[in-house]
Amino acid sequence: MPEKKKQQSSLILRESMQQPPNVNPDVLKNIGRKRKKLLSADEYVSGVISGNRSILGQAITLVESSNPRHSELAQTVIENCLRYCGNSVRIGITGIPGAGKSTFIEAFGTMLTGRGRKVAVLAIDPSSVRSGGSILGDKTRMERLSVDPNAFIRPSPSAGTLGGVARKTRENIILCEAAGFDTILVETVGVGQSETAVASMVDFFMLLMVAGTGDELQGLKRGIMELADLIIVNKADGENILKAERTAAEFRNAIHFFPVPASGFRQVVTTCSSKTGTGIEDIWQTINEYLTFTKKTGYFYERRKEQDVIRMHDFIAGDLMDSFYSNQNVKVTLKDVEEKVRRGEMTSYKAAYILLNRFLNK
Amino acid sequence: MPEKKKQQSSLILRESMQQPPNVNPDVLKNIGRKRKKLLSADEYVSGVISGNRSILGQAITLVESSNPRHSELAQTVIENCLRYCGNSVRIGITGIPGAGKSTFIEAFGTMLTGRGRKVAVLAIDPSSVRSGGSILGDKTRMERLSVDPNAFIRPSPSAGTLGGVARKTRENIILCEAAGFDTILVETVGVGQSETAVASMVDFFMLLMVAGTGDELQGLKRGIMELADLIIVNKADGENILKAERTAAEFRNAIHFFPVPASGFRQVVTTCSSKTGTGIEDIWQTINEYLTFTKKTGYFYERRKEQDVIRMHDFIAGDLMDSFYSNQNVKVTLKDVEEKVRRGEMTSYKAAYILLNRFLNK
Repeated sequence: MPEKKKQQSSLILRESMQQPPNVNPDVLKNIGRKRKKLLSADEYVSGVISGNRSILGQAITLVESSNPRHSELAQTVIENCLRYCGNSVRIGITGIPGAGKSTFIEAFGTMLTGRGRKVAVLAIDPSSVRSGGSILGDKTRMERLSVDPNAFIRPSPSAGTLGGVARKTRENIILCEAAGFDTILVETVGVGQSETAVASMVDFFMLLMVAGTGDELQGLKRGIMELADLIIVNKADGENILKAERTAAEFRNAIHFFPVPASGFRQVVTTCSSKTGTGIEDIWQTINEYLTFTKKTGYFYERRKEQDVIRMHDFIAGDLMDSFYSNQNVKVTLKDVEEKVRRGEMTSYKAAYILLNRFLNK
Repeated sequence: MPEKKKQQSSLILRESMQQPPNVNPDVLKNIGRKRKKLLSADEYVSGVISGNRSILGQAITLVESSNPRHSELAQTVIENCLRYCGNSVRIGITGIPGAGKSTFIEAFGTMLTGRGRKVAVLAIDPSSVRSGGSILGDKTRMERLSVDPNAFIRPSPSAGTLGGVARKTRENIILCEAAGFDTILVETVGVGQSETAVASMVDFFMLLMVAGTGDELQGLKRGIMELADLIIVNKADGENILKAERTAAEFRNAIHFFPVPASGFRQVVTTCSSKTGTGIEDIWQTINEYLTFTKKTGYFYERRKEQDVIRMHDFIAGDLMDSFYSNQNVKVTLKDVEEKVRRGEMTSYKAAYILLNRFLNK
């Protein structure tokens, strides 16, 4: 219902909508905030590769910053860390809300650190753009893992387009690997596009389901089920065991109609309980079978190389937008042209055309 | 489980993963396909503004094409249509799978055409990238609306990033308005990021819910609920009426804790039945109240202007990527550099850097 008109309404609108899609609002947020002193590129790199968690955290913050003055430094850090990365298993985890992703990661991650592995948990959450990083709560929900000296949990980059968030997660993987983490868990929180992004940056992709969440919802997941190397029916405990087993059997039936995945490794369907721990070790065993198989066929290495190419295109997309918006010719024209569009004196098309020509010096 | 290694596995991988994020695979798909003859820009524009549905369809196909040779023609068509657009109500519709979006649009759209309005239905479906345009099925599910001479249903652009799909939907809005459609319904199918994209291109945004889909699922929607101007509890019919009313009351309670929207128009929660038609007309009335209110305060026009600016940045992002990948200097280097990345002889960062410098003639 209509309420008293607020004077600040236009300002709210502007804040939430006027941001160019690829320019991060962090720049504005940082103004007036007390800043941590930046380190030199060498200090970041040597800190990260020595496994210093505090510096790793600061390096990630640097990479996620969209202050243009940080961008060059961040690039140097990433580039120098690249040679130390690659020695890990990268595992993607997705699942519908309510499938118990946090509890599963807590159980799975703790099992892994118990076996001497160093586990980093990263997240891609496209919906956090607006809701302001709801996944932060996950850190507190992963009680054991968050205080585990062999685990590192980092919530999703808090702003930007899905493309931007994915790009930054890719870079965070590099940093975590350079810091010595040998198992990277990438959790995706949004439903839809983000699974594809995650699948393009991991070696192994698993989908968490629960028994009986309704046909329509599960139907939505067919495309995502095809992306998964492992489908897990979670919450197989107590009275739920039979129902979970039945659901798993149905999925096993269904995947026979799927095409054989590019890896040549037929999808596995399994049940587990994050509460009792049943089935958690089996999952790790399946992952290892997958790794052994795909390393033997060469698919593992081929996929990683293709992912390097995707990462290259990701970098291009990001840098292209960065250089556009930091270009001096663009900067001096942008405000004026935006104002003309806003006043209806110029079409958005014409304005874009003028700015692009400024940028390309035509 | 491991299966016989397939020779084509690497090819499948390449097809699904190697596509640069902003280069559309349509170009490949179109090779060898029988092509409709292209019209001239004038023919497209005069056909569209005369309300010729066949030419409108062809113009949309042109705009959605990612054949670089079509891009300039498409831009001219859009630019010339811009002056004829704007005289419509743009309404965004989202909802969880199973909330009955198609049936709702069928009921709502038919009610509108019954009142003499011309209704265009467009969709944003980021997940169609992989699943191949599942929303096409919606057209057949909207039995009455799809044969209604005053309605035009267009499924989602079938490929590209969310940004690309959103950009093309924005352009389709322009074309439909130029063709005389005065009510544009933009449906979003993905869950997560796409609502924000839709909210940035419509005047009014509504969220379709159903009673009793579980707390956790509804919890996910809080960010999206805050975006909505109207929350509709659908399927309020038969035995479901009481449950729907109760859910609506809960939502009404919940939104009191939300900040007042930038429009100054406090969100409305209502129930409806797409089956019996109850509540469908009330929704249209709420939309009209909103329009009257926001036109009076000026918010309506201000928001549209801001959206024009967003559209400008959208155009820039698209054109920038297009000109990068069609740049002659980039083209001659790209394959070679990709190959070096693939062979591990060059980091993805370095490769991106080289290509960007080629593009910018540095």
